Order: sequence, then C-alpha cells, then structure tokens
Amino acid sequence: MKNNNQLYGGIEGGGTKFVCAVGTEPNDIRAEAQFRTTTPQETMAQAVDFFKQQESSFGKLASIGFACFGPLDPNPSSPTYGHVLPTPKPGWSNANVLGVLCSAFDIPIAFDTDVNGAALGELNWGKGQGLDTFIYLTVGTGIGGGVFVERKLLHGLLHPEMGHIPLQHDKTKDPFDGVCPFHGDCFEGLASGVAIEKRWGQPGSTLPPEHPAWDLEADYISRALATYAYTISPQRIIIGGGVGQLLHLLPRIQKKTYEIINGYIQSPAILEDIENYIVNPELGNLSGVLGALALAKQALLEN
Amino acid sequence: MKNNNQLYGGIEGGGTKFVCAVGTEPNDIRAEAQFRTTTPQETMAQAVDFFKQQESSFGKLASIGFACFGPLDPNPSSPTYGHVLPTPKPGWSNANVLGVLCSAFDIPIAFDTDVNGAALGELNWGKGQGLDTFIYLTVGTGIGGGVFVERKLLHGLLHPEMGHIPLQHDKTKDPFDGVCPFHGDCFEGLASGVAIEKRWGQPGSTLPPEHPAWDLEADYISRALATYAYTISPQRIIIGGGVGQLLHLLPRIQKKTYEIINGYIQSPAILEDIENYIVNPELGNLSGVLGALALAKQALLEN
Repeated sequence: MKNNNQLYGGIEGGGTKFVCAVGTEPNDIRAEAQFRTTTPQETMAQAVDFFKQQESSFGKLASIGFACFGPLDPNPSSPTYGHVLPTPKPGWSNANVLGVLCSAFDIPIAFDTDVNGAALGELNWGKGQGLDTFIYLTVGTGIGGGVFVERKLLHGLLHPEMGHIPLQHDKTKDPFDGVCPFHGDCFEGLASGVAIEKRWGQPGSTLPPEHPAWDLEADYISRALATYAYTISPQRIIIGGGVGQLLHLLPRIQKKTYEIINGYIQSPAILEDIENYIVNPELGNLSGVLGALALAKQALLEN
Repeated sequence: MKNNNQLYGGIEGGGTKFVCAVGTEPNDIRAEAQFRTTTPQETMAQAVDFFKQQESSFGKLASIGFACFGPLDPNPSSPTYGHVLPTPKPGWSNANVLGVLCSAFDIPIAFDTDVNGAALGELNWGKGQGLDTFIYLTVGTGIGGGVFVERKLLHGLLHPEMGHIPLQHDKTKDPFDGVCPFHGDCFEGLASGVAIEKRWGQPGSTLPPEHPAWDLEADYISRALATYAYTISPQRIIIGGGVGQLLHLLPRIQKKTYEIINGYIQSPAILEDIENYIVNPELGNLSGVLGALALAKQALLEN
C-alpha cells in the first residue's frame, strides 16, 4: 500500500478563497494555487482543473482531502454527505461540492470541515502532535472550531459550531448588538472580525494594540475558551485566524482565561503552564491546506 | 473469558450517599446497599465490607466499577490516578479512594466520574443505546455532565466540568449572585438545587410548577444545553438529577433550547424532533449504580 512516490491533493475551501495544494507534507509541497470563492460551479471547476493539471505533471494522485467551510454534512452514511447545508452565502446552499470531485477523480476523497482539517494539520505537524484531545479555534472573519477528541475528529450529530455559543454580554459595557444573523450576540456575533469592524467603524487591522477593542475581544474569547475547557476538557487550545493570531492578543487571552477558570480545573497544564495550554498554530495560515493533505492521507488509510 | 455466572460489583459514589450493587444488568441486581457519605475511610470501608459479604454468598466478583463524585483523577497513567482532587468536601481532598478498593480486591477495577458512569448506564440500557455521541447531564444538588463522544467516554485533560461554564446572567432580572465558591454565577452557581433553595428561600421541591423559579431555571438550563450542542454536537442530551427530572421542566427546556438555537443547527433531530433530542434518563436514579456495573464489565473487556 505504502508508496513513497505517491502524492496527495488538498483543498482548503474557505468562504472567501480556496487554497489547493499537491504534495506530501509541509516541506514537500509540489504545487499550490489560490482563487476567490465565487459560485460552487466555477470554484469547484477551478479546483478540478488544478488537480488535473498536476496529474499531467506528476501522475495520478493517491487521494484528495477536502476541508470545506460549513455548515456541511460530513456523515458518509447520510444522503446529503458532501453537501454544503443551507447557508447565507449566495449560491452555496445545498451545493453537492464533494460530488463534483468524486465525478472528476476515481480515487479516495475525504471530506470534513475546514476547522477539522486545520486541527488535523496541527495534529500531524504542529501544536497538536502527541495529543489525544484538543481544539483548533479560528477567530477571523467568522469563528469556528475543529475538535480532535480521544484520538478522533469530532462530528457527533453534524459537527461542532464553536462560534455560536451564547456568551455573557454586558450591554452597559458593550452596547453593540452583535452581527450574527441567527443569534445576534453569540460569540461570533460579538467577537468575529466582522463584529470588530462594525462595532468600531474600522477594520481590526487598523486598530492599535492599546485600543479598547482588544481587551474586550480578549474578554469574549476567554469566556469562550473557559467554556470549551469545561465542556470538552482539551489538553490544549490552538487559536488561529487573522484575529486569533494577533501577537498582542494571545497573552491577554491566556491571562483572562486563567482568571475566569479561577483554579477550578486542577491540572498543572492550566494552573502552571497556561502559555503552553493556549497557543497559536505552528503552521500558521497553512494549517488548513496542510490539514487537507492530512485528510487525504487519512482517506487512504481508511480505504 | 465469557462466563454467564460471573457477577460484577458497582459503586455509585456520590457526595451525599454511596450506592453499591452486585449483579449483571438492570433486571439482575442480586444485592444493593446505600449509606451516607461520611469520611473516605469509613465510607470506603463500608463499600469493601459490602462486597466482601456478597462474595461470601455469591463467590468471587469478576470486576468492580467505581463511578465517583469529583473532581477526581481518572487517568490510569497519572501518579494520582484514583484520587479525589482538592474539593471543598471536608476530608476528601486527595483521598486515594481507588487504592482502598485495589488493596482489598485482586480483580480488575474501573474508575471514572459519577456522570461518566451514568452516561455508560444509559448507553448500555437506556436512552444512549446505539448512539455515538451524547451527553448525560445531572441537575440536582450540583450540576455535572458525562460525555460519550465518538464511541468513547471523554476524559481529555482531566474530565469535563459541564456545570461550571459561564452563563449569561441578567442581574436586572435575576439579582441573585450565585452560589459557586469558585465562580459565583456560573451555570451550577445559578441553577443547581442549592442555588434554587438559596435564591427563593425554600427548597425547589416545595415550589409549585407555576412558580417563577421554573421558567428562570429552564432558561439557564437551556442556555447551557445550547452551548453543549454547539461545542460537542451530541446526538442526544439526557438530563437526570432531582431538578433535571421534574416533569414540568422538560417541555420548557425543550422549547427554550429550540428557540435559542434558532434553526442554526440544521439537523432534523433538533429542527423536527426536539422531544427526542432532550430527554430524561430511562434508568432514572439508577443510571449511576447501573453505570458502575457497566464500568465493571468494561474493565473486564479491557484486561
């Protein structure tokens, strides 16, 4: 089965852009392409074209991993497996994105959420190595989380939606109503990049570290992390995304989460080593597409 | 290995009382005993005496399962495996409760949280049958949850502490400060039986169904359930405990949780069948001790 020459394909399908790559691991990426997420027809066709082209250079791929934005159906025994579920994103509701790939390539294809893909990338080559249970949270335009739990990617009923938990919202301190079309002031509604921009009237990238936006942001993220620590009991929480990877934010989140938990979880990992408990991803923005390669490898093992 | 005559021992070690049983399943309990939780020395000695006595009647037990109140250390590779961790309960901090059993019985002994035990009971003989991922939540004197996830009991870093998540607390509607010694107004601090009694000046058992206590209680529980649905993505949530099993409360919790999720989790289980998504345990108050028997069976399979 094992063949040292075999190459994998990976797709990180984001709501804003798609990243495709061919290779075997972080130090062996043979080809990469990025393109804007437009319609499912056009975007999926670009992905198919990219891999067909690579196959003409490198030979047949061994498998493909597709880590896609959601909500989506990741359950292989469901009739809508591989579909995007109803989403506010125009044109993508109920799109059978996996079906497009399966029609074009007669090889194993794995399908999961973008954040489960990123978690798998960190598991294989980053801050998740050797762990049994951890969370990969992305805080960027939106907020979502992948969960690796007791050595498996968590799906459960459908897949977690870590960004949509209800949060304490003190309107006397933060009168902003939130931006989530479903919940208003859930975690994503209060703390996503979109929320930051709408609350302060300018993008987060233009707000300096001493701006009050950031203590508020650290506060919301920390409440969410404490919630995850109590519900999932992760051995580590990895925070990625454009907001989540801001260097001045991480120490505030570590400090605030420590304060909220207040000694209740009696593990040295939290009590004595919070700097290694809440971390940024090792693979940075590449967690996603490398995770898709890891999904591809996993697909092959399972077939 | 399989022997139809073999009997198992189970201990549900609660903070208020211990329940011990010998048998094989719900319809085959050969002996049972209950006693108050006093000091670890006295209480564990009573458990040992009970099983020694049963062995003199029925012969040697095949294995014992011990589902204990926490916080505790359930990690077999840890030096403090089987100990209760620092707890406000006098005398129990750092007690090596598993050690007492292991010194007395030379058979496989499984050790886990009381709520993971109850989850295992429901998995084997109750509302968890056939599921891959579900939560057993108890709302009684305290609040805690066991999690069965992707076909395994979740431990992670230590074990979940589902009762201690931060919750939205609108002090204009509910000025009560909460009773949690660590967090004040976390979920347990606001919604446990102790909190209900302190807020209203009388035990919950004396408050009629139309009392405003119960809509408030349903509101807090529902926020917590929505949080669990987003983080763990369970296929079902089972609510036990003295408060959790109040018949007039369940429909309010189902309705309110449905409203909070507001269609975001696009699964028929929630959208169309919330009555079977949030349920009371099939085994009622026996989930715990039967779960301990199930732990005992599992210990044997793993040895």
